[in-house]
Amino acid sequence: MSDKPPSQPTWGGRFETKPAELMTRINASIGFDKRLWREDIEASKAHAAMLRDQKIIPAEDADAILKGLDQIAEEYARDGVPVRDELEDIHMTVEHRLSELIGPAAGRLHTARSRNDQVATDFKLWTMRACDDVQRAISDLQDALLARAEEHAETVMPGFTHLQVAQPVTLGHHLMAYHAMLDRDFVRLMDAELSMSECPLGAAALAGTGFPIDREATAQALGFTSGPTANSLDSVSDRDFALDFLAAAAFCSLHLSRLAEELIIWASPQFGFVKLSDDYSTGSSIMPQKRNPDAAELVRGHSGRIIGCLTSLMVTMKGLPLAYSKDMQDDKEPVFEAYDLLMLSLEALTGMIATVTFVPERMRAAAEQGFSTATDLADWLVREAGVPFREAHHITGRAVKVAEERGCNLDALPLDVLKDIDQRIDERVFDVLSVDASVRSRTSFGAPRLSVSASRSRGRGRTDGLPPRLS
Amino acid sequence: MSDKPPSQPTWGGRFETKPAELMTRINASIGFDKRLWREDIEASKAHAAMLRDQKIIPAEDADAILKGLDQIAEEYARDGVPVRDELEDIHMTVEHRLSELIGPAAGRLHTARSRNDQVATDFKLWTMRACDDVQRAISDLQDALLARAEEHAETVMPGFTHLQVAQPVTLGHHLMAYHAMLDRDFVRLMDAELSMSECPLGAAALAGTGFPIDREATAQALGFTSGPTANSLDSVSDRDFALDFLAAAAFCSLHLSRLAEELIIWASPQFGFVKLSDDYSTGSSIMPQKRNPDAAELVRGHSGRIIGCLTSLMVTMKGLPLAYSKDMQDDKEPVFEAYDLLMLSLEALTGMIATVTFVPERMRAAAEQGFSTATDLADWLVREAGVPFREAHHITGRAVKVAEERGCNLDALPLDVLKDIDQRIDERVFDVLSVDASVRSRTSFGAPRLSVSASRSRGRGRTDGLPPRLS
Amino acid sequence: MSDKPPSQPTWGGRFETKPAELMTRINASIGFDKRLWREDIEASKAHAAMLRDQKIIPAEDADAILKGLDQIAEEYARDGVPVRDELEDIHMTVEHRLSELIGPAAGRLHTARSRNDQVATDFKLWTMRACDDVQRAISDLQDALLARAEEHAETVMPGFTHLQVAQPVTLGHHLMAYHAMLDRDFVRLMDAELSMSECPLGAAALAGTGFPIDREATAQALGFTSGPTANSLDSVSDRDFALDFLAAAAFCSLHLSRLAEELIIWASPQFGFVKLSDDYSTGSSIMPQKRNPDAAELVRGHSGRIIGCLTSLMVTMKGLPLAYSKDMQDDKEPVFEAYDLLMLSLEALTGMIATVTFVPERMRAAAEQGFSTATDLADWLVREAGVPFREAHHITGRAVKVAEERGCNLDALPLDVLKDIDQRIDERVFDVLSVDASVRSRTSFGAPRLSVSASRSRGRGRTDGLPPRLS
Amino acid sequence: MSDKPPSQPTWGGRFETKPAELMTRINASIGFDKRLWREDIEASKAHAAMLRDQKIIPAEDADAILKGLDQIAEEYARDGVPVRDELEDIHMTVEHRLSELIGPAAGRLHTARSRNDQVATDFKLWTMRACDDVQRAISDLQDALLARAEEHAETVMPGFTHLQVAQPVTLGHHLMAYHAMLDRDFVRLMDAELSMSECPLGAAALAGTGFPIDREATAQALGFTSGPTANSLDSVSDRDFALDFLAAAAFCSLHLSRLAEELIIWASPQFGFVKLSDDYSTGSSIMPQKRNPDAAELVRGHSGRIIGCLTSLMVTMKGLPLAYSKDMQDDKEPVFEAYDLLMLSLEALTGMIATVTFVPERMRAAAEQGFSTATDLADWLVREAGVPFREAHHITGRAVKVAEERGCNLDALPLDVLKDIDQRIDERVFDVLSVDASVRSRTSFGAPRLSVSASRSRGRGRTDGLPPRLS
Repeated sequence: MSDKPPSQPTWGGRFETKPAELMTRINASIGFDKRLWREDIEASKAHAAMLRDQKIIPAEDADAILKGLDQIAEEYARDGVPVRDELEDIHMTVEHRLSELIGPAAGRLHTARSRNDQVATDFKLWTMRACDDVQRAISDLQDALLARAEEHAETVMPGFTHLQVAQPVTLGHHLMAYHAMLDRDFVRLMDAELSMSECPLGAAALAGTGFPIDREATAQALGFTSGPTANSLDSVSDRDFALDFLAAAAFCSLHLSRLAEELIIWASPQFGFVKLSDDYSTGSSIMPQKRNPDAAELVRGHSGRIIGCLTSLMVTMKGLPLAYSKDMQDDKEPVFEAYDLLMLSLEALTGMIATVTFVPERMRAAAEQGFSTATDLADWLVREAGVPFREAHHITGRAVKVAEERGCNLDALPLDVLKDIDQRIDERVFDVLSVDASVRSRTSFGAPRLSVSASRSRGRGRTDGLPPRLS
Repeated sequence: MSDKPPSQPTWGGRFETKPAELMTRINASIGFDKRLWREDIEASKAHAAMLRDQKIIPAEDADAILKGLDQIAEEYARDGVPVRDELEDIHMTVEHRLSELIGPAAGRLHTARSRNDQVATDFKLWTMRACDDVQRAISDLQDALLARAEEHAETVMPGFTHLQVAQPVTLGHHLMAYHAMLDRDFVRLMDAELSMSECPLGAAALAGTGFPIDREATAQALGFTSGPTANSLDSVSDRDFALDFLAAAAFCSLHLSRLAEELIIWASPQFGFVKLSDDYSTGSSIMPQKRNPDAAELVRGHSGRIIGCLTSLMVTMKGLPLAYSKDMQDDKEPVFEAYDLLMLSLEALTGMIATVTFVPERMRAAAEQGFSTATDLADWLVREAGVPFREAHHITGRAVKVAEERGCNLDALPLDVLKDIDQRIDERVFDVLSVDASVRSRTSFGAPRLSVSASRSRGRGRTDGLPPRLS
Repeated sequence: MSDKPPSQPTWGGRFETKPAELMTRINASIGFDKRLWREDIEASKAHAAMLRDQKIIPAEDADAILKGLDQIAEEYARDGVPVRDELEDIHMTVEHRLSELIGPAAGRLHTARSRNDQVATDFKLWTMRACDDVQRAISDLQDALLARAEEHAETVMPGFTHLQVAQPVTLGHHLMAYHAMLDRDFVRLMDAELSMSECPLGAAALAGTGFPIDREATAQALGFTSGPTANSLDSVSDRDFALDFLAAAAFCSLHLSRLAEELIIWASPQFGFVKLSDDYSTGSSIMPQKRNPDAAELVRGHSGRIIGCLTSLMVTMKGLPLAYSKDMQDDKEPVFEAYDLLMLSLEALTGMIATVTFVPERMRAAAEQGFSTATDLADWLVREAGVPFREAHHITGRAVKVAEERGCNLDALPLDVLKDIDQRIDERVFDVLSVDASVRSRTSFGAPRLSVSASRSRGRGRTDGLPPRLS
Repeated sequence: MSDKPPSQPTWGGRFETKPAELMTRINASIGFDKRLWREDIEASKAHAAMLRDQKIIPAEDADAILKGLDQIAEEYARDGVPVRDELEDIHMTVEHRLSELIGPAAGRLHTARSRNDQVATDFKLWTMRACDDVQRAISDLQDALLARAEEHAETVMPGFTHLQVAQPVTLGHHLMAYHAMLDRDFVRLMDAELSMSECPLGAAALAGTGFPIDREATAQALGFTSGPTANSLDSVSDRDFALDFLAAAAFCSLHLSRLAEELIIWASPQFGFVKLSDDYSTGSSIMPQKRNPDAAELVRGHSGRIIGCLTSLMVTMKGLPLAYSKDMQDDKEPVFEAYDLLMLSLEALTGMIATVTFVPERMRAAAEQGFSTATDLADWLVREAGVPFREAHHITGRAVKVAEERGCNLDALPLDVLKDIDQRIDERVFDVLSVDASVRSRTSFGAPRLSVSASRSRGRGRTDGLPPRLS
């Protein structure tokens, strides 16, 4: 009663790809999910050991499986993962090799699990480790910032708003602003990692299983500190862990894009606040003095790519009914790409910060331009002479005007000239009119003077025990 | 020496907007930041009280300020905030009104602060409360889901993968999958709120201040539980709190889009799993039986808008040098829009879930189609008859084929027919072949049978003490 | 047989919004689609006239409808559109008012149409006009750029790569680069407008109509130059026109963000290439010399918002089955927002460019730094002395090194010093070593020397006949 | 006077990557830009020929270069492009091999050009061809849709709004709605290709050149139909062509996501409108009747990835000052990824549409549900009996109610029952009450009855002359 499809020539002789080949191409994920091989093998080992302990499969089969998996791990570590599209994904690739090695017993490994919970487990495990790696790289960049900040705790530079000189600050304080941003990134990754610490293994295809499995045991063996997931449908449908990682990566990359922008501007001959090291810039065979801040530009550009990765997975997940849909296979590449780009960005900035040469005399000269201590004069009038705020601003405006006419800074105005402007001014005012005095006078919590030592890092100290980096 | 701009006619007589008017239009934010009026007044009150306690301003002036601010709050609560573009923003609008009410003493309020730390404080405070509101709305939706899940803890429905019937589950279990997603949303908002709990007030323009302010006091008075921010430059440059809120909102809206998609599909006559209540659907004057799931469609559509809001702020923040830049004025509208759309979506879904009529008989009929217990047969063979996994699958495939030829379900196959397929099958197999038996047999943690009661909500119980909702 | 929903108290006493009120809030679009009132009335007039001409409705009823619609247009132009949520949208609001004015004959207007084709027609019409408006505003900015470029056709400035001085160019040439970008924006909007020039009116709900309507007539009356749409299902499901507008707006805003970035950097005291006019910057009462480039920063920031609008609609449209779904109601606000922000950005930049004071002496000084004519020396060696390219680079590197040691520019090196470096150099080399000579020597098509006059604008001349701007 | 960087151990012993290796990793693009090898060689050949014809380089050198480049093309076609990170990119890789092959004469090739205009030219050329390829793939999918639409021009199916049955249409008409969307995609790519048809070669680093090059000649040789670009700064700063391609790809992928969504819903057992062919679905060894629509799900998911690619490049380009910045190296991977995913999606859907089995009897049954001809009854009353529109709706509502009570369709109501409802109804009404009659009666332009033949394809016929596909 139903219709028959027309023979192919009807709908276009130009369509040359054969269906089978096309379907293999669109379906195979081994080209990218091979990156999960360590996690796949670990999860399989935990599963096999649990099946044995629960007496779901014979001990000797389990032991053969465990030994076989160890051998595969060795092979992959040595030779890489073989990519054969007809084996589709890393799960089938490993299982196929296992059956070559140990024969039919390999078939018992897939008892009480499914590819749906297997891939969720592998990928979550990978992402947890990616969080660790990024935290470590953030911590390295923070160390580099802190070292340079301590070195430059007294180096005066202009604080900008709207890229206009506003008030003097210190270079140390400026660098510590990025340290503070990175603290939030670090904590965000801790939160993300905690929120992904429930193990989906054992949810099977979507509805759990009738085998007497011990999900607590596998969760614990694999380092999922919050135990097994509570809902089997959600377990195989959930990609929040990947989204959480991507959001943390995107926000961190935004911070890095800001630091990169500043390095690029500071390295321009007009600013001249920094000289980039040869290692992190490219030169010109023809203009030997030139240093292009390529690394900083790539870091800035990469923020676009990483935001694109986050967007990608959000759109893919939108409107998907439960439980597993194949759309979700598009989860991995954005996460891998964001991880690679972010790690590279963090390492590049760490190297740049560690090796950049700051030029304090250019920074000081810039800070002394533009009457950057005018606010200090106004505040002094309020504080020391009891002048109301709005009137103090008016007096300061006049002083700046006089200084501008004389072509000098505020602290170079003679006292009698200042007294002509307002009688309440006395010699103590010079305690705040130079850029050094201005910085020194700002004693509130979080202000330049105290910032380097006052810095708190909510997540610090935690990286010491982190496992080694993803390969 | 520098050039003079050409007179206007040269560059285009069609450009009719006057510069001043245009600049006012592009610059004014009072049209949207008036929404911060409560927070602006609260922060000013905390600041004034601290200035008094630190003896930075006279007590009588501080008291006049506090009284004046209370009066303004009353006025705005009663009459709304007056919008006058020449007063630019909510901060100037409040201060202007204050000086009308109490005269020159109003001028002392702005001592030791700046608009830069003021707006950061107001907006952060608003966003903290937005987190509370969304958590409360999430909790309501979870309550609705839980109530319906308990009611339908035994209602059998098909579990789908790829929108194909896979295995039987319960409606209660399915609803609890969304409960689990919302748990993560709840925790994500808790994390976001904690991470925004440092108070920027006192960072002033960017460099702190020389006045002896007490930042711990204002932070505490305003409910910033982690105290003051540690770096003054970061304090006025940071919009992570807005991004964290937007990411949490976007991910929550993705979960809602999935539930909405399911309601839409389930409400189609082909599925017929639900009948939407009149209150949450629109009808047709001409087709009285028709119910369009408009509310669900708007929830699904709104996920696009909310993701757009997140994208918007990420792009705006990309590559901004420190400290404050005017670009950051584009932070508020996306947050307000995302909040409004998400709250509406949560409330709409709460109402829909609470009032929807489920149609268990359609769900059961669907679950019984498609040999959804084939996996149970295979697992039974492995478990009870010791058949290796791959062989069990092969036997099951044959059983399904026979049932298909007979036009019946698996549990309607006579035992002798099953034994013809494989001798190891015995009458105990019927314990798993019906959809009820299948559900009953799945006893692993997180599986349908136990899911409703096993549900854990990491953040639950917390909403009770939440302050009243943002207006 | 089906279940009954629990009474409300079960699922949460905190859920306070009444369903009806909530549904009205989530459903009503009059709050924003009132902006389509002109288009709605125009489309209704075209439809009514066609119904009369096709004798589908009586002439006297049609005439009453037309007269009533004119009156409504007058009312709305004078008093604004009344917003009553229970009338849902602009279509119902107009029809309701029409029946107040002319009685039952109003009911004939909706013959042979539906809200689905009506809203598609209104919104497409609005978007076509938005394209016109943006083209006009682009054209104004191009005029401003061209006027300043002609004025500064000979003003030497540094051409940057990586924000490092690379080679001398002219300010006129630099400004014309933005003119070229805007040409592409202009053409992109022309293409978008052409591609949206098919009229959906008459597609009815989704399946066309049995009434003998004349779709060519209404398409023509409304200015849809490509006639009626060819597929009724697509007509009501399609929002490509909105996406095309948003993409054109987003790409234009990216160009504007680049110009804004340059103005901000150029206005920094370190660059000092421009002085912004008072009209397009904000000052400081305390630092009278300060000019913050707020307008440029808002333009840069707005690119984030506009990209967010594009993202928003893409996500909303993803995966929608045919034909109309309510999700599509989320199409208008992003388009309105993008239009408003882009128009404001274009006007602000037009004003800024027209009134900015360029500082040629700072630009020239910057161009003379950094041996920006080194490439010219190398090219001269290749061209005039037949030196192979790689060797020429080597010789130039040595010359730059000598100049650097002497602390002078390349054109200040004595000829004998140059001859010591390479004998093939003669006095003709000075024709290319100064920045003026360098610019003069670059005669290839598209190079600085000729750029202002050579500029081609593919879409120019078209704005003259454009209709007046959207209100 | 300036500071010295601290020795490395200070800032963190964990930072293990050596600067040089790290910089090579972050800087090298050969890993992905090798895909431009054909275009790089072609552009170099055009450039060399022009240099010879303009007598800028000796003819014998030019001929050696041309011969060498041909040999390299053969090598790469046969063996692939060798990837050596120290050669950075495809341009250096080719030039390096050329100097191995022909010696110092290779050095002349880079006369009067730079990597900046070279990469812009190569990548623009590649993107033009990508437009051709996608157009061809779109055309194939249109052919497949048209073939199936012609086959099913009379097959009745329900037209849905809100996934609720609304009015009967034909399957042919429904398929042609996608044909119409793809027409817009085709035209969008034509527009994009036209707008990228200006050749940047000869813009050199950013400022053109003093060599007497002939840019018209190279533009023509390479197929840039609009000649050379008009502004050298814009030439190397512009990535609009990549953005135009990405927007066209994203919008096309949205259309495909809608078709994919429908196929997935239609393939659910509840709908059963289609049976997917084995070639484009995956099965289950255990449930032989099961067909998962994996290919459709991947197409739907890929729309997220492609939108992510567009987002990525928009963010990367935001706020970049002129002219070339290294950020722009992040342009290629998103374009390559979007191209690959879109081509795969188009081919997969072409195959699915060509091979899917439609189930007309399920479609017809669905169309006959839900009183889908109620609108036809109302329209008949207006048209044939002169009943006002609103009254006609009221009468129809009553008829539907009676039919619902009797459990029959509208066309099964006896005439006398209809007359009891309204005396003006006569036997001619049955001409519109069946779904076939309903479809037959809709004769307006664009309605189901005529749609297949009326389809216009603005861009059709153009694919015949397209060059062969990108490899």
